[in-house]
Amino acid sequence: MTLSTRPTITAFERSPDGGQGLARDMRVRWALEEVGEPYDVRPVSFAAMKAPAHRSIQPFGQIPTFEEGEVALFESGAIVLHLATRHDGLLPADPAARVRAIGWMFAAVATVEPAITDREAAEYLEPEAPWFAARLRAAEDRIGGRLADLSRRLGAADWLDGAFSAGDLMMADVLRRLGGSALLAGYPNLGAYVDRAEARPAFRRAFAAQRAFFEAHRAARQDPPRPGSE
Amino acid sequence: MTLSTRPTITAFERSPDGGQGLARDMRVRWALEEVGEPYDVRPVSFAAMKAPAHRSIQPFGQIPTFEEGEVALFESGAIVLHLATRHDGLLPADPAARVRAIGWMFAAVATVEPAITDREAAEYLEPEAPWFAARLRAAEDRIGGRLADLSRRLGAADWLDGAFSAGDLMMADVLRRLGGSALLAGYPNLGAYVDRAEARPAFRRAFAAQRAFFEAHRAARQDPPRPGSE
Repeated sequence: MTLSTRPTITAFERSPDGGQGLARDMRVRWALEEVGEPYDVRPVSFAAMKAPAHRSIQPFGQIPTFEEGEVALFESGAIVLHLATRHDGLLPADPAARVRAIGWMFAAVATVEPAITDREAAEYLEPEAPWFAARLRAAEDRIGGRLADLSRRLGAADWLDGAFSAGDLMMADVLRRLGGSALLAGYPNLGAYVDRAEARPAFRRAFAAQRAFFEAHRAARQDPPRPGSE
Repeated sequence: MTLSTRPTITAFERSPDGGQGLARDMRVRWALEEVGEPYDVRPVSFAAMKAPAHRSIQPFGQIPTFEEGEVALFESGAIVLHLATRHDGLLPADPAARVRAIGWMFAAVATVEPAITDREAAEYLEPEAPWFAARLRAAEDRIGGRLADLSRRLGAADWLDGAFSAGDLMMADVLRRLGGSALLAGYPNLGAYVDRAEARPAFRRAFAAQRAFFEAHRAARQDPPRPGSE
């Protein structure tokens, strides 16, 4: 519980993405910007993330978390849903459309993101393994299957189901993790979908905030600039 | 849209688990039993799952789906949340506890289940690969990390956060997928947690229903009995 009058989220003290906004605090920042709620950010070091104080809110020792008054929450999908439920603008009013939008939120984190993080894990943990090329190919085939399905469903529409919703916010942020790869290039409508999402003023404010946060915490420790981060 | 007065879910016409209730319709059946809502089940063949009619509801060509009146939904987490929101009994009344329970639902499908399905994928797709043993070890290490975190959080409690909730329903059903492996045996409190979940009358009714469904669809095609399924 915090005495602050505005919500506090946690983010990596030093994001491994070098300021690209690929960590999961980005989607929470973005949702907060979409609903117009100011927030504070508490940096968490990799050591602190695994310590009991942080684990009391996030049992798996990850970021982000969300704290506001009595509410202490983890899982980016749950946090965005909480914000979307408490504020207007991120979920449709029609009940059937509303549950479909929530369905897309689950699809983003349970069906699409695991395929993407699986490839990241292989790149991180197994780059020297003799099976790396085959393993990468299997991971990319799986991602390709998800993208093909998603691309077919999106078709020529701007968003997955009518107006922009928390489902699009989650899905677009998940797809952003593919940014550096050629995988998304095979699906021009998905690339345009991510571009459209990133052009939203709320996204741009959230992105700028995470970038400034990254730079401030690097500067505070006098780390050298990282190539491509500025 | 259906004219039926009760919800219809989809399930594998012939589940690859041989009637063990490890597919994702099980958690939806269980939630329907917990809230006391009768339902119909439409079997879907592997071919039909990938066809346009099914994909119009489930773009990734999977089961389960849920249809009731105007509502057509996919993603087991979203379906269970929809049921938990519309009926009493699966989410606490206290607002802060309610969002935490929803947080556990997301944790089940976004943080714990992907580690488990990753091992299943390796066993399914790569058993002949020269790297299989190393790959399996990496997948099991990742599962072990999640289980250690979850076990630490559960401690000596019956459920993850106070009374049984939709968060427990989702998490216990995800852990059930580990049934055949020794991984869960390392965490006796998690094994007892799953046992406790499976002892619930609603779980037992749902399990019996999926088993009867499996047997009926096998019998209808005159398949031979599968060892261990009866």
